Amino acid sequence: MEKIYIFGHKNPDTDSITSSLVMANLETKLGNNVEACRLGNINKETEFVLNYLGIEAPKLIEDVEDGANVILVDHASNLESVPNLDNANILKVVDHHKLGLSTSYPVYYRAEPVGCTQTVMYKLYKDAGIEIDKKIATLMVSAIISDTLLFKSPTCTDEDLKIAKELAKIAEIDIQTYGMDMLKAGTDLSSFSIEEILKLDAKEAMFKEIKAVINQVNTASIEEVMKMKSELENGIEKVINDKKLDVFILLITDIINSNSQVIALGEKVSLVEKAFNVKLENNTALLKGVVSRKKQVIPVLTENA
Amino acid sequence: MEKIYIFGHKNPDTDSITSSLVMANLETKLGNNVEACRLGNINKETEFVLNYLGIEAPKLIEDVEDGANVILVDHASNLESVPNLDNANILKVVDHHKLGLSTSYPVYYRAEPVGCTQTVMYKLYKDAGIEIDKKIATLMVSAIISDTLLFKSPTCTDEDLKIAKELAKIAEIDIQTYGMDMLKAGTDLSSFSIEEILKLDAKEAMFKEIKAVINQVNTASIEEVMKMKSELENGIEKVINDKKLDVFILLITDIINSNSQVIALGEKVSLVEKAFNVKLENNTALLKGVVSRKKQVIPVLTENA
Repeated sequence: MEKIYIFGHKNPDTDSITSSLVMANLETKLGNNVEACRLGNINKETEFVLNYLGIEAPKLIEDVEDGANVILVDHASNLESVPNLDNANILKVVDHHKLGLSTSYPVYYRAEPVGCTQTVMYKLYKDAGIEIDKKIATLMVSAIISDTLLFKSPTCTDEDLKIAKELAKIAEIDIQTYGMDMLKAGTDLSSFSIEEILKLDAKEAMFKEIKAVINQVNTASIEEVMKMKSELENGIEKVINDKKLDVFILLITDIINSNSQVIALGEKVSLVEKAFNVKLENNTALLKGVVSRKKQVIPVLTENA
Repeated sequence: MEKIYIFGHKNPDTDSITSSLVMANLETKLGNNVEACRLGNINKETEFVLNYLGIEAPKLIEDVEDGANVILVDHASNLESVPNLDNANILKVVDHHKLGLSTSYPVYYRAEPVGCTQTVMYKLYKDAGIEIDKKIATLMVSAIISDTLLFKSPTCTDEDLKIAKELAKIAEIDIQTYGMDMLKAGTDLSSFSIEEILKLDAKEAMFKEIKAVINQVNTASIEEVMKMKSELENGIEKVINDKKLDVFILLITDIINSNSQVIALGEKVSLVEKAFNVKLENNTALLKGVVSRKKQVIPVLTENA
């Protein structure tokens, strides 16, 4: 059988990278010829996880050929996938995001409105009757911790928590200690240039006619990141010009206190003010209790566009 | 909790009607407040099934209100659903068709490239640990027989067959006898006007810029249906004018010998000729071995548009 390429979204986070590895493990055990891939650089948080386990990152790819067999994990949207997705043959989708794909053929599709793709992946292992080993469990629980910010995000469901606890047992980790170490590793921005920070977890999205990028950076101290504010603003202006954006939204998310400082620039910053009912001062405002881009940001931007 | 409306596609077939009833049974057992609905009239084949079991058809609805909670079964496309789908709150999708929905929020989505929605439904029961009773099993196996033309359609997978056999046991039916009786009941066109026949199992679709309707009518004798050819053609011309179609494709499918006679009218009949590599004579041609709209018709029309 021809090889199947498995990948998560562009600007991959821990869920996208680990889902690609975990799905590759499951598909291999089901007898399929697959390769775990990624569509971008590994972030510091994911690097922590891979180093902890001593395993390699998935293969970096930029696109797939016409007719290539692919499995999408942790995304279901053309904007976040390979450029040639429309000409690929999508075999499966395992996801926890909104729906946004069209095909001319039926696809195996497994998604649930839960905090993390791995919570769905866990069920695929159960259904297939395949055991989850220690390494795989560690990858899975890491992604649940990452996506739910240690179960503090409103995206976190009871199922995420329950499955994370089961996986932590198999992984033999203390979920709080390991989780906080992992999240903190992800807040280390010291090795990145401003340009790199602005791409780290950036997602492009259209809100009606408004072309936006929403970038999220986790931190243990908003104050620390805000020391770079004017450099970040200069960098954002450049991205807006290059990508012809209507608005660039940078969320600086405090993983300890569960708030986000937003920096927004562009002609349509009014969308941010309207969506969150805040007034931006010097391009910035504190969004109290906002930690989830998916659940607390994208929907209100969509509604208010 | 607010009521959840469950429905299949417009011009419902046996799979859409039974999936709505079966999903309502499962959701009720899971403690949810649901109502099985349908978006159109019951066809003769489905009538046979409901009469056999002595049960009522789902409630006929034409649309849902803004914000209504809905579960879609056997379809995942706006064109085939309620007009107000974009303003509804889609909770779940259980399907076996191509992907075609966009949302701004995550959705429980369960689809597989199998012959019938019920093959996926069967797994939902297994996952939930809920027993399938005799009535539900009869509804489910009826839909698998219907969608796969008694396992002869190329859409039929090994899983459809295996699960249908298990369900037939619970349903206490002889699958061949019951199946052929059911399919034959569906070929009875005697009570329908030409206008009704042309709407019975009609699906609207866009192939690039080409607006098409593809209608399928099952028969035990193509010759019998072709006696109405000129009346059908007159009716088709009217539909083309009313709906401003570029092409109307009527498939008259011989369920005994597994062929389809196609009647095609409209400015873009060349699409049919190109897709099937046939020459229409007097608007018609025999498509040898073609029985599945989904697997043997839609994809080649998409490819050749």
